[in-house]
Amino acid sequence: MTRTVLESKSKTVTIGFDEPFCVIGERINPTGRKKLAAELEAGDFSTIEQDALLQVACGAAVLDVNAGVVYNSNPNPNETEPPLMRAVIEMVQGLVDVPLCIDSSVPAALEAGLEIAEGRPLVNSVTGEEERLELVLPLIKKYNVPVVAISNDDSGISEDPEVRFLVAKKIVERAADFGIPAHDIVVDPLVMPVGAMATAGRQVFELVRKLREELGVNTTCGASNISFGLPNRHGVNAAFLPMAIGAGMTSAIMNPIRQVEMEAVKAANMLMDHDPNGAAWIGFSRVLEAVKEGATFAEAAKAAAAAGSGRGGRRRRRS
Amino acid sequence: MTRTVLESKSKTVTIGFDEPFCVIGERINPTGRKKLAAELEAGDFSTIEQDALLQVACGAAVLDVNAGVVYNSNPNPNETEPPLMRAVIEMVQGLVDVPLCIDSSVPAALEAGLEIAEGRPLVNSVTGEEERLELVLPLIKKYNVPVVAISNDDSGISEDPEVRFLVAKKIVERAADFGIPAHDIVVDPLVMPVGAMATAGRQVFELVRKLREELGVNTTCGASNISFGLPNRHGVNAAFLPMAIGAGMTSAIMNPIRQVEMEAVKAANMLMDHDPNGAAWIGFSRVLEAVKEGATFAEAAKAAAAAGSGRGGRRRRRS
Repeated sequence: MTRTVLESKSKTVTIGFDEPFCVIGERINPTGRKKLAAELEAGDFSTIEQDALLQVACGAAVLDVNAGVVYNSNPNPNETEPPLMRAVIEMVQGLVDVPLCIDSSVPAALEAGLEIAEGRPLVNSVTGEEERLELVLPLIKKYNVPVVAISNDDSGISEDPEVRFLVAKKIVERAADFGIPAHDIVVDPLVMPVGAMATAGRQVFELVRKLREELGVNTTCGASNISFGLPNRHGVNAAFLPMAIGAGMTSAIMNPIRQVEMEAVKAANMLMDHDPNGAAWIGFSRVLEAVKEGATFAEAAKAAAAAGSGRGGRRRRRS
Repeated sequence: MTRTVLESKSKTVTIGFDEPFCVIGERINPTGRKKLAAELEAGDFSTIEQDALLQVACGAAVLDVNAGVVYNSNPNPNETEPPLMRAVIEMVQGLVDVPLCIDSSVPAALEAGLEIAEGRPLVNSVTGEEERLELVLPLIKKYNVPVVAISNDDSGISEDPEVRFLVAKKIVERAADFGIPAHDIVVDPLVMPVGAMATAGRQVFELVRKLREELGVNTTCGASNISFGLPNRHGVNAAFLPMAIGAGMTSAIMNPIRQVEMEAVKAANMLMDHDPNGAAWIGFSRVLEAVKEGATFAEAAKAAAAAGSGRGGRRRRRS
């Protein structure tokens, strides 16, 4: 059984065929968030502190950290992103004890993150592009960490799922040349918007099955892409996630602060027999009860998480 | 491609691998509804009139009709159920133009229903029990209608999915002996409560795939069984339905007046590429907008259905 092991200083999270679906929180990312970008340029980390705490309280098992901000004072990300990545990771891992996913298209920022991250983070990402393979795979080998492999290459993103499968296969083979095992590759088969491509859902379900059966790899995706451009996006996402999980997808980069999506994931975990005695579902249902009584999902999840850690005595190992 | 064709007087509904999921409305059923049972005994059909209209407005493609009431004045269903079945079917098919699913464990009630039903109704159900096979299959052949085949037999309901598969296979083979084709058998693989049997979800997903690939049959289930005994049942059902649809299930007997379940089905249809241009999803999203503005789902669906028939000019053919 394929197991991709991630670690923080004190916690291990396994992405695997026999594990609950791994929710990777996507919110620590200034892309498209102008206010957050301006805050980070001004050295204000308060929003990402909130994002880190809330995402973990809402059920993220891993936090993606992207520091891809373009400063007004310096438009060169090769200069600005590595130190910001370092600073954000230091802040986040001082605050929460989940493994991180170091997310950048700037190799120097990935390396800065890898130097500072505790445990065994996931790297996001390598693609099938030659330049990326040559830049990123040596880092993966050097730090002995797992990596997200996005199934596009120098010819772009193919609409043909068979081509995307072959790109994933190429990345797995190239990684093997570097001595990186398949269980440390988490393939993103690329989720297209179903509103633009009617076969987008079926493509993903079939690709996930094939990636799992033929390459033996774990999978991930940017889940909310599926609903881009459609009305009531949460409803589409909340059906897509259980279907992807049923097809064998083992993680997603997503917003854990959204109740309906998290509810769908928790229910799907139970339906896949990955929630012993339904304990996680029953706990989650208590959070939903508090939401019915007027709390926001984030507030209710935070309160439940705090009550849980006070009651359960799972002590923070770092002091 | 397997196609199970149902008909009302004026409408054809196809259950099939390349069709939108067929929602069979379950509400016209006095089992466990004491008030409704008393009404029916008193000759008051107003509740089932409402049930028929609302279920169709909410998106049921087929209506299940069960007249299994035990009268205070006469406890013998062999005497009371056939005339009640006839009366209810006459009432329902005078009111709505969807195909019916004639649901009884009393063969005389099935035959009474078959005599009066217009078009090509579905019969619910035969099992693998010898007596049922011998009683029901000749009716299916005589009236040339499709039938729901429930995968239990004289030894009861097996917890082993392989045994349930073999029961389904036996029913398909026995039906063939009567000249009934596999495409007129809709197998119910039996959904257990996941709260009592942790593998219940996975069993169904695997069984559905196998029934489809090896026997080439359509499938159905009592969808809400999956969540029996659990908190927040709608959340469980709303994840189960997309997962079952992704696995290849083609219909369910369910409550179409429940918004979250219907939302999950509509989204899953789109994700399976069974909703050209997302038209059904976009229409459904308008209903959800009305719900956000304060309407109940049933009211909003009814208003949308009325507006649709007024605008679209799909005339009722019966006059």
